[in-house]
Amino acid sequence: MNEITSRDNPHIKQAVALRKSAAERRAQGLFFLDGYRLCVDALASGFVPQVLFCTALARRKYDTVALETVAAKGLVISEAVALKLGDTETPQGVFAVCAQKRPPDVPPVFAPQGRYIALENVQNPGNLGAVARTAEALGMDALLCGGGCDIYHPKALRASMGAVLRLPVFAIPAEGFAAALREAAQMLRCFASVPDANAIPVTRICFGRGSLVAVGSEGNGLTAEAIAVCHERITIPMPGKAESLNAAAAATILMWMLAQPNEE
Amino acid sequence: MNEITSRDNPHIKQAVALRKSAAERRAQGLFFLDGYRLCVDALASGFVPQVLFCTALARRKYDTVALETVAAKGLVISEAVALKLGDTETPQGVFAVCAQKRPPDVPPVFAPQGRYIALENVQNPGNLGAVARTAEALGMDALLCGGGCDIYHPKALRASMGAVLRLPVFAIPAEGFAAALREAAQMLRCFASVPDANAIPVTRICFGRGSLVAVGSEGNGLTAEAIAVCHERITIPMPGKAESLNAAAAATILMWMLAQPNEE
Repeated sequence: MNEITSRDNPHIKQAVALRKSAAERRAQGLFFLDGYRLCVDALASGFVPQVLFCTALARRKYDTVALETVAAKGLVISEAVALKLGDTETPQGVFAVCAQKRPPDVPPVFAPQGRYIALENVQNPGNLGAVARTAEALGMDALLCGGGCDIYHPKALRASMGAVLRLPVFAIPAEGFAAALREAAQMLRCFASVPDANAIPVTRICFGRGSLVAVGSEGNGLTAEAIAVCHERITIPMPGKAESLNAAAAATILMWMLAQPNEE
Repeated sequence: MNEITSRDNPHIKQAVALRKSAAERRAQGLFFLDGYRLCVDALASGFVPQVLFCTALARRKYDTVALETVAAKGLVISEAVALKLGDTETPQGVFAVCAQKRPPDVPPVFAPQGRYIALENVQNPGNLGAVARTAEALGMDALLCGGGCDIYHPKALRASMGAVLRLPVFAIPAEGFAAALREAAQMLRCFASVPDANAIPVTRICFGRGSLVAVGSEGNGLTAEAIAVCHERITIPMPGKAESLNAAAAATILMWMLAQPNEE
């Protein structure tokens, strides 16, 4: 195979665009993976790399045979190009471009006995990745990412330790989030988490199966439209002085409560 | 006041060293603050800036009078120096060097009815800050940071939204962590969180007041010495496929359980 040494190669340019831009990821329905472990996780979860990029060194260091066999296109790249592609300072030299399993135009599917966490406009990719990781560990059936939740951001993928690839994830355009919750509310009990002491304390809810909890951004919370289509408004009691949890901490507590067996 | 325009000014060099280096923070017992809000939070929590740095622009934009009145030394700096000092790309132009309230040689103090979270070797400063923020919101009485927990890292301060300044925080040298827990165990019920399915599920513990929960690093968990001095080994049940929570998520769940009223 010829080694790609030019950063102007169209595949390299596409990959960099997908790494950098949420708009590109949304428009193309594709995403970018950096690192051997994430690429293998993707393969194990049924993602087929449209393009796989490896340095010659990485091909000796890692077992890339399965990845190269499955990928629609395999390219060998120079170390300099790998540095350009990489999202980290010391890339391993294995990268892929994959199609999102559920691009934004695929509506979410719900199971009547499922447990779901839905995020709206949570912008910090590290927080998003942490929520995906916790959602997987606590056995959520899917993660809904509405509006500004850029779940395919390279930092989100990394922080999730690959959970974004393994967990069913629905990326929902901002304007479709309330509609998706309305659809969910036909089948599931839907709870809107709000920072309002008059809402029902989460400690007094028996979630059980067939529940969805929606969490909004730290700054603005859930949109009024999203809250309106939920059945209940719930809140996390905070005995401390500062009433302040970051979105990931709030989602962690809510998923923990959601994961408990219903004792009713 | 003369404006400092040189990056080689000794106060600037000290501040940059304190921003960059955990070893400097430990050795000097000082830390660096970037941003008007954090500096005001520090003042409100009784920290007296040893040196306050403001740009001329920031002095017009923000109400820095109280800060300047209290600070042992106030310095006006050029915009170029502010860019050098700043931890973020667009600094506000207000910075401070403060003494840690409880430097590593001050042993922690415990109240018999208190609730405590203790971290050992948790290295991600964003996670540390998030834990401090949640600890404050959920009403923990203090945060113990053992070993490699660099709680005065600028990213930890920022992620904590100032909680590191408001909450009692004890920074404990690595070699003193187990000894600090042994001291705590004289007065409090101490729980070691371990990733071991044979440990007691956290759902079966009634913590109540007078409890301390210790959480270790993601990679290595708590040290054997720390586990040995705790009364109980507890674990977070994970119904999902991947048994993996980041240290902040684990600490969040444990603090949430610790914060619940004891129903015994």
